[in-house]
Amino acid sequence: MPELTTAYSNLEKRFARLSALSGAAAMLHWDSAAMMPAGGSEARAEQLAVLSLLSHEILNSSEIADLLTEAENASSGLDDWQRANLAEMRNRWRHATAVGPDLVEAHSRATSRSEMEWREARLNNDFASLVPALKEVVLLTGHIADAKSSAFCVSRYDALLDEYEPGITSATIDTLFDDLENFLPEFLGAVLENGKSKPPIRIPEGPFDEGIQKKLGQEFMTALGFDFNHGRLDISHHPFTGGIPDDVRLTTRYETDDFTQSLMGTLHETGHALYEQGLPREWRSQPVGAARGMALHESQSLLIEMQLSRSEDFLAFALPRIKESFAGSGPAWEEDNIQRLYQKVEPGFIRVDADEVTYPLHVILRYRLEKALLSGDLAVEDLPAAWNSGMRNTLGITPPNDRLGCLQDIHWPSGAIGYFPTYTLGAMAAAQIYRAAVKDIPDFASQIRAGKFSSLLEWLRRNIHSRGSSQSTNGIMKSATGAPLTADAFKAHLRDRYLS
Amino acid sequence: MPELTTAYSNLEKRFARLSALSGAAAMLHWDSAAMMPAGGSEARAEQLAVLSLLSHEILNSSEIADLLTEAENASSGLDDWQRANLAEMRNRWRHATAVGPDLVEAHSRATSRSEMEWREARLNNDFASLVPALKEVVLLTGHIADAKSSAFCVSRYDALLDEYEPGITSATIDTLFDDLENFLPEFLGAVLENGKSKPPIRIPEGPFDEGIQKKLGQEFMTALGFDFNHGRLDISHHPFTGGIPDDVRLTTRYETDDFTQSLMGTLHETGHALYEQGLPREWRSQPVGAARGMALHESQSLLIEMQLSRSEDFLAFALPRIKESFAGSGPAWEEDNIQRLYQKVEPGFIRVDADEVTYPLHVILRYRLEKALLSGDLAVEDLPAAWNSGMRNTLGITPPNDRLGCLQDIHWPSGAIGYFPTYTLGAMAAAQIYRAAVKDIPDFASQIRAGKFSSLLEWLRRNIHSRGSSQSTNGIMKSATGAPLTADAFKAHLRDRYLS
Repeated sequence: MPELTTAYSNLEKRFARLSALSGAAAMLHWDSAAMMPAGGSEARAEQLAVLSLLSHEILNSSEIADLLTEAENASSGLDDWQRANLAEMRNRWRHATAVGPDLVEAHSRATSRSEMEWREARLNNDFASLVPALKEVVLLTGHIADAKSSAFCVSRYDALLDEYEPGITSATIDTLFDDLENFLPEFLGAVLENGKSKPPIRIPEGPFDEGIQKKLGQEFMTALGFDFNHGRLDISHHPFTGGIPDDVRLTTRYETDDFTQSLMGTLHETGHALYEQGLPREWRSQPVGAARGMALHESQSLLIEMQLSRSEDFLAFALPRIKESFAGSGPAWEEDNIQRLYQKVEPGFIRVDADEVTYPLHVILRYRLEKALLSGDLAVEDLPAAWNSGMRNTLGITPPNDRLGCLQDIHWPSGAIGYFPTYTLGAMAAAQIYRAAVKDIPDFASQIRAGKFSSLLEWLRRNIHSRGSSQSTNGIMKSATGAPLTADAFKAHLRDRYLS
Repeated sequence: MPELTTAYSNLEKRFARLSALSGAAAMLHWDSAAMMPAGGSEARAEQLAVLSLLSHEILNSSEIADLLTEAENASSGLDDWQRANLAEMRNRWRHATAVGPDLVEAHSRATSRSEMEWREARLNNDFASLVPALKEVVLLTGHIADAKSSAFCVSRYDALLDEYEPGITSATIDTLFDDLENFLPEFLGAVLENGKSKPPIRIPEGPFDEGIQKKLGQEFMTALGFDFNHGRLDISHHPFTGGIPDDVRLTTRYETDDFTQSLMGTLHETGHALYEQGLPREWRSQPVGAARGMALHESQSLLIEMQLSRSEDFLAFALPRIKESFAGSGPAWEEDNIQRLYQKVEPGFIRVDADEVTYPLHVILRYRLEKALLSGDLAVEDLPAAWNSGMRNTLGITPPNDRLGCLQDIHWPSGAIGYFPTYTLGAMAAAQIYRAAVKDIPDFASQIRAGKFSSLLEWLRRNIHSRGSSQSTNGIMKSATGAPLTADAFKAHLRDRYLS
């Protein structure tokens, strides 16, 4: 016990310090997006750079390396959560130390520059102007992939993926995505064919007061279990969930001519927020207390938004409140019309605006392309052509320009290769988890129709949120749903919602 | 040049890092007061503690000590600002290293506890319950005074004062305060006697919409030159000016039955904010680029609030805007009445509510008492009696309870001995600086009456703000006004405003 568990306790202290630093940075990130005046950006960048540098120094110290080895040699004295925590510490350490400081800095500088170029390029619909900066990012991200690949003994793509979704490999993703790709195009055709026989969707007419939209969002957040003693709702240009589990900062934005996007956006972020607020309290400052990965995180937002909030049962509860708030009446406000508005399927150019049927096709295209970029099979210059041909083949539409094509997302310019697949892994997980919850909870439908969400939240808390990172993604999926992640529940859900 | 100025450049880099850390902490402090939900406080305290700890570690490293000596030995190669910067670095280092880490931690723990006890004690009007915690704070603050006194070779009180107002000694303060104490009581009597012949002041009747109050405050802030591209106005329970020079976060609070307090509070904080926004841009990340001290800081807020905003010339500009905003009409809104409302003099129990005539008497009492507490001449138990007798002797009123007496301020429970005198040093400096500005600026009165403040702001920028910490407080006073700080201008201002 003495000497040896001391190493572990010592590590806990150091990782608590790292957690406080990353928590401070998370708050400053939120502030940058939701509060900061433009003139504060330079000083803020400096603050964040210094916090990141200090974290890096702490994690890279030789003391941490020694303590990790010492604690692992004595791990028989640890309980399951401590052992899982130690494994998470090791994984963070591996990511931090696999890449030399020069490459980290070069990559960081290249992505900053490329993000700036991307903003301009998108604005001007000028992919060529982005090419040099993006080539540099792809090159340096490739160097990072090389370094991590040899340090972790996995493929280059899997080494990058591990940062966003540890434990899931591209072999698994290939199987899951092949399954979807065999299903979706034909399914989409059937859904579109089916829709032709229905009357056109009516759009409720605004203007919709921003204050009322906010109040309604807060009301639904509260109903779903969001704890405003540990979080806030504010406005930012790109909605996101930030902050820390004890103080979740959720943002949305309001359009006065359309309440639906903001409301669904708020509900989506609420799913992320509930996950954060439900992480195990006693492990808050430790790696094992963090959310498992991006796939499960996205599963929680999509479970609340897609599975729950766009369902007929939820609408039975929500629509009267929505109509009352906006004093809505007339044919556009009838349940059947709103239902079809929320479940509209239509191939489009923009991923973030896509419905749940076409969304995976956007993701799969990006997954294939980013693997090709990384392997060198696809040159950055050839991206627009490859993108457009991919869109034509899967969604049957061709972007008229790169702004509506390969310039739409910030991920690649910011060096995030390996992130895209987690969106669709999340959609599949959401369906599988929701199905298990519905099965486990008696009277599920009537509870939802009555606006009672506590059974669902308790179920999620118990089976997903409170697990933190104590198990792998598939470990959590198996405990919660009885099976590892597959596409089955997602496909069944789509069939059920769109073709029954 | 090579080896030796390298030490200085190296120090600049390290102090830039410290500046980013303290800037991050300043933002998180503002967030705690203006944005954070209650449930976030524990995690926030941890974040701030870690930032403070890391700053302390950087400042206390042996490398910094070596670099300081090396740079000082080569200081002939530095220009004036660099040399001043080096002196400021040395002073920060002295404060950080004079006190051992055990004492710092014990003091920090004692003040946290004592602040909590103070909140309870004030609420319950129970001084006795605060005594043990406050004794501990006074004792440990005394130990800090011992350590700094022997390290800096100054008296114990001056060693504490140096943290808030470097370069001014208690000998100077004694002279200035004696001057005021010889003047104020008789002057106050004359002002009160004079007031008896005037009709009673009418109070404008509310309610005053919060949104309109905020808009009016923003309008005046903008007129005065506050740059909203580098700052915000928000709400907090205790108004303050926080953030960093590039991003000043100013707070106020609104009462719907009284617009005057919030408006004057906002104008007061605007004075602080203009100082911060006007600090020398090229030295932002260095100690020499910071505000000189608390006295000059308070001089800038009092110059805007007391000297400018409560003047007849300002009211000639402001009142029409105020009346228009609140649709005010009738006798209570007449210029003469509002003028007397803003210049009301009346002895009261609470410092923060005091007018500018009686305020210094509150401060002088605290200054005498805190010196006696520190020297041991006054026991903590005897504070209420000493306080009440002091109030009787100077202001002629006796607090009916300790809540309106020695329990009103958080300064001593939080260990801030040496802070109080800076309020009145600031009031004197404000009068002296304002007089110099009025003399230098042609057509001053007509500019103010027309709502044009750019000449005043430019004058302040040039003579005060842009100096940063490149000179001492009295150095800046001499350059700006031709003389070191005295009570003369302040006394003349009071005579002029209240007895002419």
